[in-house]
This record gives sequence, C-alpha cells and structure tokens, in this order.
Amino acid sequence: MTEDIGEFDLISRYLKPLVALPGALALTDDAATIKVPASKQLIMSKDVLVGNVHFFENDLPDLIARKALRTNISDIIAKGAHPYCYALGLCFPGQASEDFIASFAEGLAADQDIYGVSLIGGDTTRSISDLMISVTMFGLAGKRGAVTRLGAGPGEAVYVSGTLGGSAVGLQTLLDRPRFEGLSEVLVSDLQSEYLLPQPPFGLQKMIAAHASASMDISDGLFQDAGHLARASEVTIIIEQEQIPMSTALQLALESDPDLLETALKGGDDYQCLMTIPPDHQALFESDCADAGIMVSLIGKTIARARLPVMLRHHGEVVENLPTGYTHF
Amino acid sequence: MTEDIGEFDLISRYLKPLVALPGALALTDDAATIKVPASKQLIMSKDVLVGNVHFFENDLPDLIARKALRTNISDIIAKGAHPYCYALGLCFPGQASEDFIASFAEGLAADQDIYGVSLIGGDTTRSISDLMISVTMFGLAGKRGAVTRLGAGPGEAVYVSGTLGGSAVGLQTLLDRPRFEGLSEVLVSDLQSEYLLPQPPFGLQKMIAAHASASMDISDGLFQDAGHLARASEVTIIIEQEQIPMSTALQLALESDPDLLETALKGGDDYQCLMTIPPDHQALFESDCADAGIMVSLIGKTIARARLPVMLRHHGEVVENLPTGYTHF
Repeated sequence: MTEDIGEFDLISRYLKPLVALPGALALTDDAATIKVPASKQLIMSKDVLVGNVHFFENDLPDLIARKALRTNISDIIAKGAHPYCYALGLCFPGQASEDFIASFAEGLAADQDIYGVSLIGGDTTRSISDLMISVTMFGLAGKRGAVTRLGAGPGEAVYVSGTLGGSAVGLQTLLDRPRFEGLSEVLVSDLQSEYLLPQPPFGLQKMIAAHASASMDISDGLFQDAGHLARASEVTIIIEQEQIPMSTALQLALESDPDLLETALKGGDDYQCLMTIPPDHQALFESDCADAGIMVSLIGKTIARARLPVMLRHHGEVVENLPTGYTHF
Repeated sequence: MTEDIGEFDLISRYLKPLVALPGALALTDDAATIKVPASKQLIMSKDVLVGNVHFFENDLPDLIARKALRTNISDIIAKGAHPYCYALGLCFPGQASEDFIASFAEGLAADQDIYGVSLIGGDTTRSISDLMISVTMFGLAGKRGAVTRLGAGPGEAVYVSGTLGGSAVGLQTLLDRPRFEGLSEVLVSDLQSEYLLPQPPFGLQKMIAAHASASMDISDGLFQDAGHLARASEVTIIIEQEQIPMSTALQLALESDPDLLETALKGGDDYQCLMTIPPDHQALFESDCADAGIMVSLIGKTIARARLPVMLRHHGEVVENLPTGYTHF
C-alpha cells in the first residue's frame, strides 16, 4: 500500500472522483471550461503552500489537503463570493506514494462536501525535494462583484469572524513543545487543530456581499492585514484589544502563560474575515450572521486617516508598539 | 543588485507592471475578477514547472518565465481558445534575488506582448529548495467552447503545427554535450533554443475552432499524445514517419547521428498542436493556415479503431515498436 503510483493512475483513481462539473472534462483533457452564469462574476484566488514552510511534511495528508483548500476558500468568502470550483497543482518530491495520495484525496473530498466546491482541473508532477500544493480557487459573486479592501469610510464598525490567535499559538506548540508542558494534552491538541485545520466562515460571503464596505481575509496576522485594508481604504482602524475574539483553548493557554499574547496577536494563519460595516448596515449584518449561526465580533471602528493606519487600544489606552505580522520571505 | 527582495516590493516593482485588466485590482487584493464576455466561454489550463525537472535552475530567468507561459498557452491554443490572462504562483528557495526577479519579469512582459495576455493575480512564497512556477492560464473560446480530444472520426486528416523533435534533442545536448561534439555550435544552439523557448502556434486557435474535430497540445511526445487523442475519440491514428515535420537543425543533427531519431520521435516538450480535420474542412483549414502564415503539416489519418490506438508507418511499412513518451513521475 505504500507503492509509488504513476501520474495517470493517480488522476483516474484519486482525482477523477472529485470532479462534479462537466467543464472538467473528467480530467481527461488539456484544459477545462469554467461556466459563469450570466448574472454572476467569476472571482479567482491562488495560494501556494509549500511543505515545511506552510505546513509540516509529516502532517496528515488529509489535513494538508484541507488546509490548502481552506486558505483559498477564506479569500473567496472574504470577497463576498460563493466558493465554486478549484484547480489543483501538485508537486511531489520523487515519486508519490499511494498512501499519501489516498489520504490527500480523502481530505479534498471531505472539504468539497463542506464548502460545495469540486475539482475542475490541474497538474501533477514531481519535484526534487519540496512538496508543493498550488490551488487556484474560483468563486461566483453577484452583481456587485468582489468586495475589495477599498471602500471603508470613517465612522464604520470593524468586525472579524471566528476566533483569532489560536492558530499561531498552536504552531508554537508544534515548534517548541517543552514551553507548553504546563498545558493539558487536550488543550494543546485544540490549539494545534486551530493551526492544522482553519475554519473559514462558510456562509458569511452572503453578509459580506450585502453589508460590508470593505473586506479581506486575515492570513498574515490581524494587525498587518488591518493595515492593508486601512491603507487601501485610506482610513485608520482602531482595534480594542479586549474585543479580539479568542478561542477557549487560547484563553486558557494565556492564563497559564501571559507571554503568549504577543504570539497570538501578531500570528498569522487565521483564515477568518476582517470586515468594515457602515452604521446603517450594522444591525442587519449582526442579525443576519446570528440567524445563520456565524460568529462575528465587533473589534473596533474606522476613523479618518490618522498618523498610523492601525491603532491598538487596551482598556482605552493606545498601545504604542504594534505586533507586526507574518512575512512570506 | 543581487540583494534579496521582500514579497511586497517584488509584487509592486516587478509584477504590478504586468497587469492590464481592471479585474486584477492592481494585485493589491486577495482575489481577482475575471470578466467573461457574454458570447465567450472561459477555458483554463494549469501547468506547474519545477526547477531541474522541467527546466534547469541556471537557465536564464527570462527563458524560464517564457517557457512557463508558453507550456500553458499551447494548451489554450489547442483548445481553439484565445489566450486571455494568467495567474502566477512563484516559489523561490530561500530568498528571491532581485536580479532573478527582474529578468523573470522581463520574460513575462515579452511574452505578454507576443501572446496578448496579462497577469491577473497569484501568489509568491518561499520554498525550502525547489524553484517552482505554477501558471493558471485563461483563454476565451467562442460558442463552440473548448475543442476537446474527443470528436475525431475515422477517415479524417491528422495535422501537427510547427516542427517536432528538436526540443527533445536540444535537451540531450544540454544533458550530454560530448555526444554532440561533431555538430557546430550554431546547430547545437538552435536545438537548445527549441528546448528552451517553445513556439506555440499563436493564431492557430481560430483554425482549430473553425475546422478541427479534435485537438490537443503535444507536450509528452507525439506518439503518447496521439494515443491519448485516439483513445478519447475511439479511433486509430496512422502516422507516416517521413511526414513528421522537423526543423532544419534537427534534420542536420540526424544526418550526423541517425541514432538521435528515437530521441526525436519519443521526446516531449514540443508544445505544438495535434489536430484531426474532417475531409470537408481540409482544404479550408490548409488555406486559412497558409493565409495566416502558420505552419501545419499533414502527418497521417484516422481509421476506425484497430488493434492499437496509434500506428507508425515508415515508407508504407508499419513500425512495430512505437517509441513511448515522457512520463511525469
């Protein structure tokens, strides 16, 4: 069962079952057709994940697959678009083991069910030593098109979805386990799950399209990404530290080791959405999210562009040194 | 000038100038919008290239970039679609040198002018040791949609574009230079150019859409790819060996070393088109190609499905052992 598998076998046995749209031509052709309904706009996001950079090569293959999809799905949702289909580029160092592929494809299948996407095409090849996964994700937006980072005005409410910071601390538990020996196995495992399997807020795309003036996904840390949105929209975002939503596991970890706060605040890999909501949409945005059972938290507001694009306040006092985010190089 | 360059500088200095469509949002957002005119269909192809697998890492960066675009453009053309725009995923081992990026972007810009495409989005990140380039190329097809591998019937003419085999021999001159010491530098350089810079038949997409019953690009060797088309269409393709078009450089190389014929015949990396043309379209297909100055060659015909999907004939005699093509693993 750990035999190497050829490209054509890999495609027909493990990838072909992931196809649902006729435009994929059952993965038997050089190209695919992506149908765009007349009333929709096609949105595209492309994220590349590399082993031992974005994930550990000994992570479970199904989790690697799901993370690769979800880091792209969060982009599509943040643009107010409905996830649609994806193209997959897979590079394996040397030969691909059938065990790896089988588990990887299981992960893709599981998330296809959850997010309503299917495989439309792609490429598989070998590499010399890196495992690389390149996902091009397509989404369908309504007439408004993509909700961009541009569009926030002063005096708007700033929201995030889900919880933040747990993923960054989860990564730390994988890199430096001894530091966390005071935490229970269950707690560590919960934090690691936040890192290994992000939870993009599926369904929130509707409320973003209907209510957000600007939106983006949070992948490089809340402060760095808030800075991107603030600069694009030419506003300043004020974030109230105590309103940043954190998972129970992260809150418990912080109680035991308050120094983790910086890791949590500056960390990346959240794959949640950051949204600005104009005052006249705020009540409806909140009730729409509540009706759909999607967690959103008010973390601050926008003001006219001040000296800095982002200001963090802790119990009303401005925090001078903002934790910076993740850089890719 | 060989300083390392950060992700945001790289994007704003070298990639942003490659944008032409408003949907790219100047590469400042998480996603792009791909506009599809109402009368068109969107076609997508995705090929991943890995250093020291698909190219040599010391190849000139501008040639690496152009090859990455062209291997995808040949797919789009083969489907009878017009190249439109592309998303780029770039993984650099360690840090990216500014010299490399500058040259790489120059190569992209040159081919954007030639093929009428522009950058729509993507991702740049670091890898551990492999240089990887993932291109998702988009094309626009007319009402007919993509011309697939399916659709060839018996009694049709089989054509290829450009010349074949020179790329595979060019690769050999890079791998085993001593074998070619009898050839002039100019000849070797010509063969290497065929490998380093494929020449997909831009413009041929119109004739393919108008006249071909089936079409695909030739990337894994003529015989392997002809086999794919023949199996999909459930016909047998008969190829006349002496009608396979070869460049002058390849013909001269074969005169000096006839053993290279097998390399030339089974080699990959041609990035030309293989097309079946029904009899009532043949004259018009040929005159349309001649009018546009696009080289196509009649290399054989289809017959009802026989014992083998592809048969090679040499001066009318069937060649028993068909050279097989390139495999990706």
